[in-house]
Amino acid sequence: MRLAELSERSGVAAATIKYYLREGLLAPGRQINATTAEYDEDHLRRLRLVRSLIQVGRLPVATVREVLGHIDDDSLGRTIRMGAALWALPQVPEPDEDDEFVRTARQEVDQLLHTLGWSNAQALVTISPSYRSLVVALAAFRRLGHDWGAERMAPYARLMHEAAVLDLDFVDTRPSEAERAETAVLGAVLAEPMLLALRRLAQEEESARRYGFE
Amino acid sequence: MRLAELSERSGVAAATIKYYLREGLLAPGRQINATTAEYDEDHLRRLRLVRSLIQVGRLPVATVREVLGHIDDDSLGRTIRMGAALWALPQVPEPDEDDEFVRTARQEVDQLLHTLGWSNAQALVTISPSYRSLVVALAAFRRLGHDWGAERMAPYARLMHEAAVLDLDFVDTRPSEAERAETAVLGAVLAEPMLLALRRLAQEEESARRYGFE
Repeated sequence: MRLAELSERSGVAAATIKYYLREGLLAPGRQINATTAEYDEDHLRRLRLVRSLIQVGRLPVATVREVLGHIDDDSLGRTIRMGAALWALPQVPEPDEDDEFVRTARQEVDQLLHTLGWSNAQALVTISPSYRSLVVALAAFRRLGHDWGAERMAPYARLMHEAAVLDLDFVDTRPSEAERAETAVLGAVLAEPMLLALRRLAQEEESARRYGFE
Repeated sequence: MRLAELSERSGVAAATIKYYLREGLLAPGRQINATTAEYDEDHLRRLRLVRSLIQVGRLPVATVREVLGHIDDDSLGRTIRMGAALWALPQVPEPDEDDEFVRTARQEVDQLLHTLGWSNAQALVTISPSYRSLVVALAAFRRLGHDWGAERMAPYARLMHEAAVLDLDFVDTRPSEAERAETAVLGAVLAEPMLLALRRLAQEEESARRYGFE
């Protein structure tokens, strides 16, 4: 397809597509003559991903470039390839280890991983920003006087593991390694607002079931 | 307790507590003499809530005042009291009904509520910003070329309902209506980053289980 069709099918303005091409976020089309290039379904899919990351995920161009670099890195195994793409997304800063709440939160998170038997997550502790995000979130909770710990988190973690099984079942249907990594990134960036909205709706449903509308 | 102890136990600076008192976010203490007031456990709890909403939830003071107004409104039934407090939190803007993606997303969300038998959530559709948030999130997804609909969302919605049961089981342990509404608001504002971190950790665990670390 030509640029005009790529623009129409993606809903992305032609000028924006040209900008992505210049920035190297989209591979060049197949040049047909001096002024015309031809694009295919891979371009369309990648364009939608870039659009998602910039428009919905609000990622800066440099970060998008880094995420795409990991997605396209055939030298990486699947877990690390998906992980690297996800870990290139903006993350919370390193927690302050001198802070007593951070230290306690870390102990509780370690206890949680032990309780759940998440040995793989344990092996990734030193490199995974997800672990760090959980420590930071729990420390904030505890600093505000809420005594959440491993025991309170465990049932939620089990539900999130069931969600992760659904996520990866879908990732596994994708036909190539690059598409699998793309799907994982999209799930992280785009599915989160949906999941939080579902949670609030579910709370309202459950609240009305228990207490009615009075 | 005196202001100094309230400050120490909450970790909130005395000057900040005075600011909250002036802004009406915290009820005045019991005046002992011209310069000294006495505070109790209710003050400490409320102070922690205000701190959470401002510091972690990044809510403006006017919004915090509105949320507290609903929490303290004894004329409201439990569902509406919690709902009103939650709905006063910042929400997504009204979706554009002329947009075809919004219209399709709304149909899919309506289908989802029907499939799940969430009749209470259906009854709240016209007033609940959670419903609107879900429509907006799904429309963004679909605009980017992902054909998510009621069927793809349903298993996630069921998991979120299990999480909501856990949430409300905890809310129900609180001794007063005001505390129950407070707990619901804290769960919305503070638990979300924790839940998302748990989801990412669970994805890493599951990914490594399926594909190893190669």
